[in-house]
Amino acid sequence: MRFATYEIAGRRSFGVVTDAGVVDLGPKFAGKYPDLKSVIAADFPPEVLEAAQAPATFEESAIVYLPPVPDPAHLWCLAVNYVEHHAEVVGAGRIQELPKQPALFARWPDTVTGHRQPLLHPKVSEQFDFEGELGVIIGKGGRNIGEADAMEHVAGYTIVNEGSVRDWQFHTKQITPGKNFYRSGSVGPWMVRKADIADPYALTIKTILNGQVMQDGATSDMVHKIDRFIAYASTILPLQPGDILSTGTPSGVGFSRKPPVWMKPGDVCEVAIEGVGSLINTIE
Amino acid sequence: MRFATYEIAGRRSFGVVTDAGVVDLGPKFAGKYPDLKSVIAADFPPEVLEAAQAPATFEESAIVYLPPVPDPAHLWCLAVNYVEHHAEVVGAGRIQELPKQPALFARWPDTVTGHRQPLLHPKVSEQFDFEGELGVIIGKGGRNIGEADAMEHVAGYTIVNEGSVRDWQFHTKQITPGKNFYRSGSVGPWMVRKADIADPYALTIKTILNGQVMQDGATSDMVHKIDRFIAYASTILPLQPGDILSTGTPSGVGFSRKPPVWMKPGDVCEVAIEGVGSLINTIE
Repeated sequence: MRFATYEIAGRRSFGVVTDAGVVDLGPKFAGKYPDLKSVIAADFPPEVLEAAQAPATFEESAIVYLPPVPDPAHLWCLAVNYVEHHAEVVGAGRIQELPKQPALFARWPDTVTGHRQPLLHPKVSEQFDFEGELGVIIGKGGRNIGEADAMEHVAGYTIVNEGSVRDWQFHTKQITPGKNFYRSGSVGPWMVRKADIADPYALTIKTILNGQVMQDGATSDMVHKIDRFIAYASTILPLQPGDILSTGTPSGVGFSRKPPVWMKPGDVCEVAIEGVGSLINTIE
Repeated sequence: MRFATYEIAGRRSFGVVTDAGVVDLGPKFAGKYPDLKSVIAADFPPEVLEAAQAPATFEESAIVYLPPVPDPAHLWCLAVNYVEHHAEVVGAGRIQELPKQPALFARWPDTVTGHRQPLLHPKVSEQFDFEGELGVIIGKGGRNIGEADAMEHVAGYTIVNEGSVRDWQFHTKQITPGKNFYRSGSVGPWMVRKADIADPYALTIKTILNGQVMQDGATSDMVHKIDRFIAYASTILPLQPGDILSTGTPSGVGFSRKPPVWMKPGDVCEVAIEGVGSLINTIE
């Protein structure tokens, strides 16, 4: 079941995207669950799942996608968290050893937009790069979560295009600036629930720029797995329902290519993850 | 005039702290300006400044301080932004050159607490360090703000104790994890308006741990000045009213001392900035 947050007729709502269209749930649960985050916090109550079986309310083309959780308390990302991506980064001389600990950094929520919304090309850089990633959405919050219990805190999965401005990422050792350009990344189109993904480490993940496959990875290649990521991040601060943990990108990013490949206005970038969906954005 | 956000009798409010006590403004402007952030966004309207002249509503001891803006859209910090602090960091072998660009990183708002509230000592580290800093609070938001216009976007100043967990800061090149422990830092006690500070580069800044002066710096020592910080950050994303920019710490931090000095439960840490005030926290 694909839960999405979107705008329709000028209001924000959430619902389920089916092959027949969108089952709008927002108005039905307005008092009780004002948004998808509150549904996640309530662990997808039976009344919501039942309402999601109703006939579609409108065509998918009528909605304007937002990230499934547009206002997470925390959007955490990991640098160099795929073995093959690490190898290409070593090649560029940026880093030597595989990170022994998760290389955590933060993205402000306003740095990402939704499916089919434009990624905004920065005016100050030509080095606008894609990074297809599997996003984990936290269900039950908590602090100091052990690795053994971590997966109980996962509500589901989404797709992240962790758009990066490479020269600004490398201004200093702190990559944060190049990772936080306004609407330079995207999350979506929706979240699928954890139960819908049998094994999150058995998924193909592809990034396709203007029809050409640029990244063709497998989530099995992750260095720090989801349970370790959750344990590490929740040692630092309490994770909250709707928090998004983006698990790093496979090899094939634009800046490691010879010659480098950068996203330009008019380009179409798609990140496709098996069993989750396809997150598509044009560049503006 | 010292504008503070606080809890009183179980509700959140804001007001002005005077020598005679606190002038509570929250209830008076509840419909129009629900919080200090909205007053900042409205550029301190005359009716608010006039109401702030009223007699004190209650004793200062009755309020529980929160950060002046508890929910900023962005809380940006700078690493190694004082010349003398850079020198001591070079001594520790962490970095070579002065950063040519602002070494920006993000702190989630829940990593800071208010004046006289406890800083929470992490369970997983002994290396809990202080960093006294001048905080800039953004008034008028904006994107791509030029350095020449930047100071027009400053609403005022506050004090930041940018509490840092050093071993977690140095797990990888990304210092973000050690900078984001839950309630490991503080902001406050209040903000003073820009007009109350004749020259933000002519202020002494001291950090005092258990009565002993540990940092004794001058804001004149900043590498990247406030106008540059605003221009840089606003190139990345639109700054919003109430955003906090913490301008980096002078020399004298605990990890550069021989032997190192770490904050322990029961310690009292004070950051005092000339013309702004004293931000005091105990460690728990």
